[in-house]
Amino acid sequence: MIKVAIMGYGVVGSGVYEVIRKNEKSIAKKTGGKTITVKHILDLRDFPDHEQPQLFTKSFEDIVNDPEVAIVVEVMGGLTPAYEYSKAALLAGKNVVTSNKALVAEHGTELMQIAKEQNVNYLFEASVGGGIPIIRPLSQCLAANELEEIYGILNGTTNFILTKMITDGADFEEALAEAQRLGYAERNPEADVEGYDACRKIAILASLASGKYVNWSTIETEGITKITRRDVAFAEKFQAVIKLIGHAKITEDEKVYARVSPMLIPKGHQLADVNGVFNAILVKGDSIGDVMFYGQGAGKLPTASAVVADVIDAAKHIHTNKLITWKEVKENFMVDPDTVVARFFVKANAAEVMKDFPGAEPLGDEAGTWYFVTEAMPEGEFKKKLNGRGDFIRVLEG
Amino acid sequence: MIKVAIMGYGVVGSGVYEVIRKNEKSIAKKTGGKTITVKHILDLRDFPDHEQPQLFTKSFEDIVNDPEVAIVVEVMGGLTPAYEYSKAALLAGKNVVTSNKALVAEHGTELMQIAKEQNVNYLFEASVGGGIPIIRPLSQCLAANELEEIYGILNGTTNFILTKMITDGADFEEALAEAQRLGYAERNPEADVEGYDACRKIAILASLASGKYVNWSTIETEGITKITRRDVAFAEKFQAVIKLIGHAKITEDEKVYARVSPMLIPKGHQLADVNGVFNAILVKGDSIGDVMFYGQGAGKLPTASAVVADVIDAAKHIHTNKLITWKEVKENFMVDPDTVVARFFVKANAAEVMKDFPGAEPLGDEAGTWYFVTEAMPEGEFKKKLNGRGDFIRVLEG
Repeated sequence: MIKVAIMGYGVVGSGVYEVIRKNEKSIAKKTGGKTITVKHILDLRDFPDHEQPQLFTKSFEDIVNDPEVAIVVEVMGGLTPAYEYSKAALLAGKNVVTSNKALVAEHGTELMQIAKEQNVNYLFEASVGGGIPIIRPLSQCLAANELEEIYGILNGTTNFILTKMITDGADFEEALAEAQRLGYAERNPEADVEGYDACRKIAILASLASGKYVNWSTIETEGITKITRRDVAFAEKFQAVIKLIGHAKITEDEKVYARVSPMLIPKGHQLADVNGVFNAILVKGDSIGDVMFYGQGAGKLPTASAVVADVIDAAKHIHTNKLITWKEVKENFMVDPDTVVARFFVKANAAEVMKDFPGAEPLGDEAGTWYFVTEAMPEGEFKKKLNGRGDFIRVLEG
Repeated sequence: MIKVAIMGYGVVGSGVYEVIRKNEKSIAKKTGGKTITVKHILDLRDFPDHEQPQLFTKSFEDIVNDPEVAIVVEVMGGLTPAYEYSKAALLAGKNVVTSNKALVAEHGTELMQIAKEQNVNYLFEASVGGGIPIIRPLSQCLAANELEEIYGILNGTTNFILTKMITDGADFEEALAEAQRLGYAERNPEADVEGYDACRKIAILASLASGKYVNWSTIETEGITKITRRDVAFAEKFQAVIKLIGHAKITEDEKVYARVSPMLIPKGHQLADVNGVFNAILVKGDSIGDVMFYGQGAGKLPTASAVVADVIDAAKHIHTNKLITWKEVKENFMVDPDTVVARFFVKANAAEVMKDFPGAEPLGDEAGTWYFVTEAMPEGEFKKKLNGRGDFIRVLEG
């Protein structure tokens, strides 16, 4: 019998409780007969109507000092007190499983190091891609590969909004309001629409793929709030759709490029047809070629199912560290974004801007904005030429 | 230092050698510093120009009696002597990693049981989906789910042929010849085009998902040799493409339905756009919803990369069984295929056949064949009504 404590009884936390209860038998089969049961639930709120009210506590001490608790599920979100609690739990020799991307992106290096020293595990499959298996495939299934590139649609809320704009010709504001109405976007949608959520996720993926801690705060991040219905229509003329893409590349000299931004995805590309709240992540390895993982990137049960998969994995490795980790590296190993070569979809504020881009493909103009797509060139050179005379969106290379 | 023996130096075996050599450093990072090296290569042929000719042996005894060998890679294919060698290696306390789907589908239950008793592992990620991670995601990442359904394009050769027929309007024979010319199909293409390869793979997936050994020989299997250019054209009128689908369902009362057959896939479905030699596998779990895995299902380096990922996993669990298994069940737990409800794309040999299918959607006729799609009904009822007056293809439900 393995005893688990759940910290945070919100959407994901209650989902974790539900999945553990509902699938008790099939889970026990997968741990080799060990039953997994929830012993404590930490939350400051009261849940008097819960089927097991006796599980609830408001004191972390009840968890960290209980020698019976082998696995702590941290689904509180935020950095404080999630960080302090996770660290204390690991130091007490407990496995910690989390869906908290902000915490993993900020303190993951330290927490994994402590887990290693304590011979337990700090697992975070649910932090990226919700229920889509990606962390374990990256660190295990593709372990024989030098990973070269990871990119994809990492945020379901923004993908829902952009899909609405593409298929219904909606404005950003209309599409956002619809997403909020359906519960896909929060009242304060900043973390999603400004790309902050995708930024934490690509930071985690880039760190895993490169083996070096990629600090999320160094990743240039741009959201979708500036995308207009007109941009979407002119992208269509270029046979492309606009998606918010988290992108990481590892160069041959082991430098890392990472960025979150809207991109034009040519139709026919696997990512172009990923619609609504779905996520999809493409991984390029030197041996494997392209592999894609697709599914629901969020939601109560999908995310809970990823958390519980980690709980099962922790139960099978109660005192064996799984060696999933990355290192803190002092020297700067990030690629200068200005050197990265791409084509650019330009929204220029004057007709003559295009003259400075020989070989550009004109897409037409509307209401004082001239649209065209440049030839491939380094971003620094492009920006110098554009010289502030309009805005632009990068084009994903086929 | 972990010593590995490779049995079989064909396409996959040489790929495994190459990946282990090329990525030695990054692999060592993932095993916690243990270097993985190849100590023996078993093959009856001579490879005098190999960079390490001293590794080759023609005697299995050199491998099974070498206490230094901790992991044996079986990529010989076929049942004999792969079965005897794998069993002997496991009984000698060695981990065995394989890409041999025929062997896993035939003797997997016994070999996993021996691995468990010996506290080692019998791993077979590469047996399904080539380089696409699917066995480990199913058994670990989705462990918190009751798996309800698995279906997909499991064979790249037939998908290449069908794609040629759809996009170029080629005949089956023309498309097959092209596949053979490009090395995607073997001189004797039977295992691929008759669905035998997909059958072994869906048997493995169904066994893993249900926890019960699904004998491949009980799975109704139909290949693509009867599909015509005209079928493809009439499917197009129904807004669908024809794909060879391996399909497994686990019912609520824990019965299993499994089948390999061509199916009509409605356009817009995620599988409809999977073209050429690519594979894609959709998994439905009770918590996760739909997850899809996509990539190259065959090829030297993708398959080798999956084998080496298992080698790394085995190296990390040298004396810990990973509890990936299924059980042999005596009573019949297979669903009677006649009870399964579907729509059917009919190629009738007379106009009046459609009259017996009220509500059917007519698609037209050509050269004495009348095409229509029935309403959903149990297969047994459908076959009785059709009464041999034509042929049919099942329609995948949206």
